[in-house]
Amino acid sequence: MPGSGLWWERPDLHYREGRLEFGGRDLHAIAEEGTPAFVYHAARVRENLERLAGALEAARVPHDLYFALKANRHGPLLDFLRSLDRCGIDACSPAEIERALAHGFREEDISFTGHAVSERDLDLIQAHPGVHVNCDAISTIRRLGRRCPGRTIGIRLNPGLGAGYNERLTYAGAKPTKFGVYPDRFEEAVAAATSAGMTVDTLHFHIGSGYQGEALDVLDQVLQGAAKILDAHPHIRRLNVGGGLGVRMAENETAIALDRWVAIVARHALPRGLRVAVEPGDYFVKDAGLLLAQVNTVEDKAGVRFVGVDAGLGILNLWAYYGIPYVVAPLSIQPGAQRERVTVTGNINEAIDVLAEDVEVPALEEGDFLALINVGGYGSAAASNHCMRGAYREILLGGEPSS
Amino acid sequence: MPGSGLWWERPDLHYREGRLEFGGRDLHAIAEEGTPAFVYHAARVRENLERLAGALEAARVPHDLYFALKANRHGPLLDFLRSLDRCGIDACSPAEIERALAHGFREEDISFTGHAVSERDLDLIQAHPGVHVNCDAISTIRRLGRRCPGRTIGIRLNPGLGAGYNERLTYAGAKPTKFGVYPDRFEEAVAAATSAGMTVDTLHFHIGSGYQGEALDVLDQVLQGAAKILDAHPHIRRLNVGGGLGVRMAENETAIALDRWVAIVARHALPRGLRVAVEPGDYFVKDAGLLLAQVNTVEDKAGVRFVGVDAGLGILNLWAYYGIPYVVAPLSIQPGAQRERVTVTGNINEAIDVLAEDVEVPALEEGDFLALINVGGYGSAAASNHCMRGAYREILLGGEPSS
Repeated sequence: MPGSGLWWERPDLHYREGRLEFGGRDLHAIAEEGTPAFVYHAARVRENLERLAGALEAARVPHDLYFALKANRHGPLLDFLRSLDRCGIDACSPAEIERALAHGFREEDISFTGHAVSERDLDLIQAHPGVHVNCDAISTIRRLGRRCPGRTIGIRLNPGLGAGYNERLTYAGAKPTKFGVYPDRFEEAVAAATSAGMTVDTLHFHIGSGYQGEALDVLDQVLQGAAKILDAHPHIRRLNVGGGLGVRMAENETAIALDRWVAIVARHALPRGLRVAVEPGDYFVKDAGLLLAQVNTVEDKAGVRFVGVDAGLGILNLWAYYGIPYVVAPLSIQPGAQRERVTVTGNINEAIDVLAEDVEVPALEEGDFLALINVGGYGSAAASNHCMRGAYREILLGGEPSS
Repeated sequence: MPGSGLWWERPDLHYREGRLEFGGRDLHAIAEEGTPAFVYHAARVRENLERLAGALEAARVPHDLYFALKANRHGPLLDFLRSLDRCGIDACSPAEIERALAHGFREEDISFTGHAVSERDLDLIQAHPGVHVNCDAISTIRRLGRRCPGRTIGIRLNPGLGAGYNERLTYAGAKPTKFGVYPDRFEEAVAAATSAGMTVDTLHFHIGSGYQGEALDVLDQVLQGAAKILDAHPHIRRLNVGGGLGVRMAENETAIALDRWVAIVARHALPRGLRVAVEPGDYFVKDAGLLLAQVNTVEDKAGVRFVGVDAGLGILNLWAYYGIPYVVAPLSIQPGAQRERVTVTGNINEAIDVLAEDVEVPALEEGDFLALINVGGYGSAAASNHCMRGAYREILLGGEPSS
């Protein structure tokens, strides 16, 4: 394959004669039509989905995949996923349920797991009886049961153990978190469901966002810890292990060992004859998305070379708020170009509006275009109009419905 | 005045017979019409503005006030400010300039200070020659000068000293920040302006967001440090000291000592005959805004009482992202109600989506309404549709144009 030997290059994303290509397209041409622009590659999403599905199939794990819509709700991307007919939607709000339905998913394809579920949320959930609901609190069970006796639900367990890209993205751990029902109240939760005439068919948990490497041990421990609950409740026929599978974001990281992940899941699920549900967001889309931006300012300030671009934390906040690093890649590189260390800053008037800090890139000039790589999840989905700099284009490459 | 003796109560915001009133209105009635809802009180904004203007007038400091539109761009609020005819607008993007113009401000009322200014930004700035521009980089000076020779500009200085609510909101300090021109390149910046035929009439700086107490010493030091620049450049006739004046957010904080602030500014500006510009955002609006939300879930998890509400970090992210605490106030309190420690969580599926952590409030029940106080700035202005829970109402109380 063509390329410059950079760790993140791959068949659908690489330099060819010094120009960055994505899905066979010269990104320069797209950038020239207007920046900032989020660009996604459908085939990469499909590849990510099929890799996960394939691993589960190879281990003969009966499974359901749900794409976490909160990671990316771009319409054409949802249409493409629907056309693949390989996954449903993980929704966390009524509006997400409605969006999934509007893009062709059926109620039966939707798994809802929300926090702080209001009566207004329940109005919509009640109106869609086919949507499967995982309850995050005994309060939700009680209030849903009052409206929908007879419904089959899941219970979200807070296993008290977590892992993720960093502490801020760990959803269960030593410090109490808001999510789910802790083991000490699980029986009370099941009793609340039973007394409302509901059936609990699913045990749900989610340990964090972006787990990989050692964190698989945490998954194993959580599943071991769940054994007691599963023993006590043979009516639970499905294990929803949440999402959070990590994506390689930096050269010194390793992608999640999928074979090991599947082996752990299979070891706990198969002997019990459980069906497995998985709800990836980032794993499907993160490395399938880039943000194209244009450099407008290159200036040395107090010994640091600052590169200002026409995008900022309003539309892409993962570095500013979470410290999650994206790759910075100029769309054109000259052979033998000098490399330099720069800090890439956004166009929002906040000190933390930095897109990449002290990264090494081929020398950039004002007017150059660059790509921020690995922003397909939780990029545009969490965009705001802060400083009224919230406008962006969004493009799906190769998203023709699959047949 | 009626009230419960709470530190944040004031004539326009207090309990009366156990119900929270704001601007003479029972908030319960507003909440019942739909939550979440941002509610602002025009008279409080006016009071904040007049307090600052009055202090400057009392010290005989010739001045221009600009409201930092990025803090709050609610249309009726902008109309109200315009009707007061006491301040202009501090804009940081072309869209903010256009919004100010659309709400009746004239070009001459607008001060623009942006970072990472693009050629597209300059198109709009060029089209509005009356807008005063403070350049944040030598690059901007050079590129603006090419288009608009003869324009009168300001230069944003990065004084290398800063202060704010916390480290993340400090805009200049030991670590190089993206903003402004450092002193070592200031002469180069002026030369770039001069060679483009532009006149530099303003020295601009901004030390951080939310400074108070000891931080006034930093302001003094910065102004002392600016003396050399002002000596060298008698064509600079205006000192823009930015915004950032702190608001009291917690009982153990003291509001900024305005008399001391004015004394410092006056001591440096008056002997030189300088006009002073100030660009407050939070100081005008933060304590003039509340977010009303409804409790839907009260549940003990791992020893913590979690109170889930129908709002989250999508529409109010100051605690989650910056640790800035708001006051949590139930809209109704019963006499002798038990007080308890709770963590208030939002309805977004992120572990950091917490609105207040371990705060003491009168006991809350599902269905109760509460107010988050001190969210009039950088609340709705930075709202996103994350998890598609981005909907909110926005109401200005008492905003009839002043005559």
